[in-house]
Amino acid sequence: MAVAAKQMSLIEQTISEIEAAENPALRSRIEQRLDNLTKPRGSLGRLEQIVARYGLATRQVEWLLPRKCLFVFCADHGVTAEGVSAYPSEVTYQMVKNFVAGGAAISVLCRQYDIDPVIVDMGVSHAIEAGLAVINRKVGPGTKNFAREAAMNEEQAIRSLEAGIRLAQAANQLGYRLLGSGEMGIGNTTSASAIIAAMARRDPLEVTGPGTGISEEQRQRKAAVVARALELHQPDPGDPLGVLRTVGGFEIGGMAGFLLGAAAARIPVCIDGLIATAAALLAAGLAPNLSDYLFFGHHSAEPGHRVALELLGGRPLLDLEMRLGEGTGAALAIGIVESALRLYREMATFSSAGVSEKETGQQ
Amino acid sequence: MAVAAKQMSLIEQTISEIEAAENPALRSRIEQRLDNLTKPRGSLGRLEQIVARYGLATRQVEWLLPRKCLFVFCADHGVTAEGVSAYPSEVTYQMVKNFVAGGAAISVLCRQYDIDPVIVDMGVSHAIEAGLAVINRKVGPGTKNFAREAAMNEEQAIRSLEAGIRLAQAANQLGYRLLGSGEMGIGNTTSASAIIAAMARRDPLEVTGPGTGISEEQRQRKAAVVARALELHQPDPGDPLGVLRTVGGFEIGGMAGFLLGAAAARIPVCIDGLIATAAALLAAGLAPNLSDYLFFGHHSAEPGHRVALELLGGRPLLDLEMRLGEGTGAALAIGIVESALRLYREMATFSSAGVSEKETGQQ
Repeated sequence: MAVAAKQMSLIEQTISEIEAAENPALRSRIEQRLDNLTKPRGSLGRLEQIVARYGLATRQVEWLLPRKCLFVFCADHGVTAEGVSAYPSEVTYQMVKNFVAGGAAISVLCRQYDIDPVIVDMGVSHAIEAGLAVINRKVGPGTKNFAREAAMNEEQAIRSLEAGIRLAQAANQLGYRLLGSGEMGIGNTTSASAIIAAMARRDPLEVTGPGTGISEEQRQRKAAVVARALELHQPDPGDPLGVLRTVGGFEIGGMAGFLLGAAAARIPVCIDGLIATAAALLAAGLAPNLSDYLFFGHHSAEPGHRVALELLGGRPLLDLEMRLGEGTGAALAIGIVESALRLYREMATFSSAGVSEKETGQQ
Repeated sequence: MAVAAKQMSLIEQTISEIEAAENPALRSRIEQRLDNLTKPRGSLGRLEQIVARYGLATRQVEWLLPRKCLFVFCADHGVTAEGVSAYPSEVTYQMVKNFVAGGAAISVLCRQYDIDPVIVDMGVSHAIEAGLAVINRKVGPGTKNFAREAAMNEEQAIRSLEAGIRLAQAANQLGYRLLGSGEMGIGNTTSASAIIAAMARRDPLEVTGPGTGISEEQRQRKAAVVARALELHQPDPGDPLGVLRTVGGFEIGGMAGFLLGAAAARIPVCIDGLIATAAALLAAGLAPNLSDYLFFGHHSAEPGHRVALELLGGRPLLDLEMRLGEGTGAALAIGIVESALRLYREMATFSSAGVSEKETGQQ
């Protein structure tokens, strides 16, 4: 970017700070330490790749066990007027209350894995009562129906991204060194499918799934809604902000900004399924090095997820056929990431444990 | 079995107590409770199958969070004389000391997931010092070289199974309600490959892998050792005890007995990779209902593992390309099983959380 830092917008500034994480010298020091641990070389499989990714992203050979925090970005979607979801819009607000009361799936998993949950209202249509542990970053009371008009205006798209960036900066200041992202928003699998279809130039029918549980007939109608929206807005995959503005959602913009802010601060984020990955697609469209800072939590059962993963070159850690959202796949994967980081920190070395290494002449 | 209970051997008695766990009425009560939780129906994917399996195995609709314990069965193998392993035999003993000192991979994971590790000497060739937290069930100082003679005699095979059964009974008495099984034994991937080749009637080359890290040339030599042993002993897949006796190991017999004892006590066990699954093959050969009580922890990177899983109809929870053993894949999977059990116990229901269910007329 040619402009001086002080003249850049927050978004431009953040993007400019996201550098490629690969560093052969650092990688080799991490691998050397891994190879000294009391295990056959490479035998921890993908856990060893997690260790390398974490070390490269944070530019460290050694680290403390990270504090962990998972953000759940919540917003409503005007496109629900098209009958695309199995649940009524009020469920977004009801689930926000369930999150703070500790009764949702993500609440349970955050307790188990010692992850601090942070619930963010990016644009829930219902007003959230004062006193609830919900961060208010409401950009608007839900998006417009993108089957008929743009989901939001440009200023709202920018505000949602900026809100996410600033939340990642706050998490950094509070010392969190491993983050997760998830979402809640009735109607948002439709928005995510539209984003993925636009960014990957794919047939909407191919990337539109059953969401929270609609019939095959309803799924076809949902795909037709996506197709009509793409026809109407003609979103350009080279313009992620335009894709967000026309067919996105406030929580998706918040997540995309959050990923940018985290990567700029060199904090790895474990992302969830379909919607979180659609947000990652937008963020990676703005900052091509983004993927170096991501852990892909799980394979969602939603068909569009696979397409988004291919574009990002991402390979999820888990495949449990989940399709719940909220960050639940990310939370489970954070447990696995923590296992990798603990093994690296806590295992004995061959010399410290008095264990013989391989016999000479063998590979 | 026709003999009266009091005349049966411990092994026969245990096998006779392992009943099929499927129970449509119980399953439907569990699924009903799952469907009342604040999530789209079925959206927790395989976690919901874990819940059903746990409930069916334990004959319960509700449960406390189980205490967890993972047994690491350790023994040496005479077949190492054939040069089948990348590490010298002494490493078995050295790793036992690493386990009790807390520096091994399994030690780290047990700490993270709050699993009590139990280290069992089933036949380590080196004497274990008194005072170490290792349970002495030594059947012999390692097996014979099964490429030249039977690995053990029949009495030893029975003793190793009985030791495993009694350890599972002890775990039951101590109140553990979720178990894991793993192993340590230099040379035991060769034994496991021989067991799998015998039980599945497969070409040794197809089920023999690199173990802790030998070259392709060494792998072919290892497969030839297995082929020679099968030629020599002609083990009959209809006689699991004979397979154990001729090409097995003391820790493998211990694990097989442990699975039988746990299933008889209706306690689910999460099993590890190649060697633990070979033990499960033997146990399932004795007790066909065994699989109802198993969780398959992970896909090992070893080729024989896939073949053993097919025979057992098992589908692992994780696929992280690990090939370490010790129970490491089982420990990670226990974290996932616990997540499923917690979600079932702790999530709010639609009515308790005031969340709307699906709109009428939608499926």
